[in-house]
Amino acid sequence: MEKIGVQDVENLAAGAAVLGTGGGGDPRVGKLMAEQAIEKHGPIEVIQPRDVPDDSFVIPTAMMGAPMVSTEKLPKGDEALKSFRALENYLGGEGFATMSIEIGGLNSTIPLAVAASLEMPIVDADGMGRAFPEIQMVTPTLGGISATPMAMGDEKGNAVFLETVDNFWTEKFSRSVTSDMGGSAIIALYAMNGEEIRDHTIHGSLTRVSRIGQAVMESKSPLEDLLEVTGGYHLFRGKVVDVNREITGGFVEGKAFLEGIEGFEGRLEIEFQNENLIARKDGEVMATTPDLICVVDSDTAEPITTEGIKYGYRVDVLGVPCNDKWRSKEAIDLVGPGYFGYDVEYEPIERRFE
Amino acid sequence: MEKIGVQDVENLAAGAAVLGTGGGGDPRVGKLMAEQAIEKHGPIEVIQPRDVPDDSFVIPTAMMGAPMVSTEKLPKGDEALKSFRALENYLGGEGFATMSIEIGGLNSTIPLAVAASLEMPIVDADGMGRAFPEIQMVTPTLGGISATPMAMGDEKGNAVFLETVDNFWTEKFSRSVTSDMGGSAIIALYAMNGEEIRDHTIHGSLTRVSRIGQAVMESKSPLEDLLEVTGGYHLFRGKVVDVNREITGGFVEGKAFLEGIEGFEGRLEIEFQNENLIARKDGEVMATTPDLICVVDSDTAEPITTEGIKYGYRVDVLGVPCNDKWRSKEAIDLVGPGYFGYDVEYEPIERRFE
Repeated sequence: MEKIGVQDVENLAAGAAVLGTGGGGDPRVGKLMAEQAIEKHGPIEVIQPRDVPDDSFVIPTAMMGAPMVSTEKLPKGDEALKSFRALENYLGGEGFATMSIEIGGLNSTIPLAVAASLEMPIVDADGMGRAFPEIQMVTPTLGGISATPMAMGDEKGNAVFLETVDNFWTEKFSRSVTSDMGGSAIIALYAMNGEEIRDHTIHGSLTRVSRIGQAVMESKSPLEDLLEVTGGYHLFRGKVVDVNREITGGFVEGKAFLEGIEGFEGRLEIEFQNENLIARKDGEVMATTPDLICVVDSDTAEPITTEGIKYGYRVDVLGVPCNDKWRSKEAIDLVGPGYFGYDVEYEPIERRFE
Repeated sequence: MEKIGVQDVENLAAGAAVLGTGGGGDPRVGKLMAEQAIEKHGPIEVIQPRDVPDDSFVIPTAMMGAPMVSTEKLPKGDEALKSFRALENYLGGEGFATMSIEIGGLNSTIPLAVAASLEMPIVDADGMGRAFPEIQMVTPTLGGISATPMAMGDEKGNAVFLETVDNFWTEKFSRSVTSDMGGSAIIALYAMNGEEIRDHTIHGSLTRVSRIGQAVMESKSPLEDLLEVTGGYHLFRGKVVDVNREITGGFVEGKAFLEGIEGFEGRLEIEFQNENLIARKDGEVMATTPDLICVVDSDTAEPITTEGIKYGYRVDVLGVPCNDKWRSKEAIDLVGPGYFGYDVEYEPIERRFE
């Protein structure tokens, strides 16, 4: 894709919700901001990583905070822009473009609003290829890229800048500040030059969510199309029979239990912490983070969040291979089941299905 | 005073502990840093507010955090310097001098270490004339001076910059970050030009603590000298018969109860939140914040902290008039008994003793 017009945002948001794997925040918040900005400023130019000069830098923008808070505390519309400008100012130069650092969920659409408002291109790439809950959980961390300098802003006009010794400290400080800001903040971070963008991000993310969104929104056989466009596996079809969920410090944590229907036998258990992290069928692991576990409505193929999943829902569960960058030992230490506290070995989903 | 040599630091720290009014952190931490820096770089030049040009700025430096933590987590020595340089860099110019923002307690000595290390003058002034527990509780706030931009640093090398819409937000964010930094942080904030220094700080603070320190350290009748040099009132002499104290989130909060001895009758109750805030004799208020309530050892006149006061101690209690800047209605809203949650009207201590 070369341009993003108002009519494209719907698909992007729908696709982003699928890659949110149950979390990542509600893309509708950013969707409205993006649509308004594009209506006012015109379509957004999409560029590829190869188009970013080595001597310029790209500044990703995002919303940080509890998904549930961010749907209630709607941004005024210019915070993302302000954090972008604040970080530019801090860095002492003009940003060449923005991009999404997290293509799953809300943070696919926030940078669209920024790009449109600043009449600036957006890079067809991201730092996760999905959604993850913490700042350091991006492929640039694996490439030794610092999350900082990072700019944070709230709707009151407060700004906070971080320069930390590693990306775990960035997560720690920014999490506290986000809480002080009322539960969500607009952030700009992981500024990267052309070479860093090419080497350490996941390419083609906007194109990918757009295609996924098309499958959800426009296809007559959305599940089949979803499986094809994501390269995913159909793990299960079932009825939700139980959900144990706790909301602690803005995080959604718990388990959903499904009973098989329409040819699927047994019981599927999904463990989640904001995002779906592990799927077990009758006790046997079928998929784990960083591979994607996506739960969609069986009738509409619309994604269902870990916050929204309820008793009685009839859903399909997809397992989607993550980007190869997530499959090194270092990557599994950063975002694998062990980091989230599960005593489960990561095995690529393709191998589990061999 | 025009110069501060190694031999002067002892008195300054002793005087600062008196103005700490029970809190403000242990001046010994900064004292060692200051002595080492002066030994290496030579005596510090002391300048007056009138000596600061209008087109230059002064950057106060301080340690933020729980007094009890700061005695255990000793700084490496260059953090204060780093925060000063970080804020200079952020402001895009060279600081003309440093100063203390809080002359009571630890933060009288931290800026001495910075001034010596940078071979830079220190201004004979501060922002409190005593110790207070929160960032916004300074006379510059009353003058409409922003605490931000503010730089914070820890011993690991992390740096955080704040730009807030008011000084209460500065307190909120910096408190969380200080906690994340392990309980204490070195900060630089309230950068002011010459005119602002002259109009909105308390002048002569270093001279004052030095004289108070002399009374404690060198006098043969320290209590009389202390009363004279501070212009204070001898509220009570008594034996500590009970202390109720709780430490919550790094704050020391509670009450001390004294029974009169040597000519003093009845019972004195001191309420404290880090600092001593209210003294009541047999139920009648004798002194309240922002006037200073200083508890000193009856034998040595050495100040006793709210953290250290214990059953059996024999102490003298002084009530010292605060600076006039603290006596407007606006000031009482900021640092009076009501702000700390007490249903007591502020009345200047001189009037209570008329």
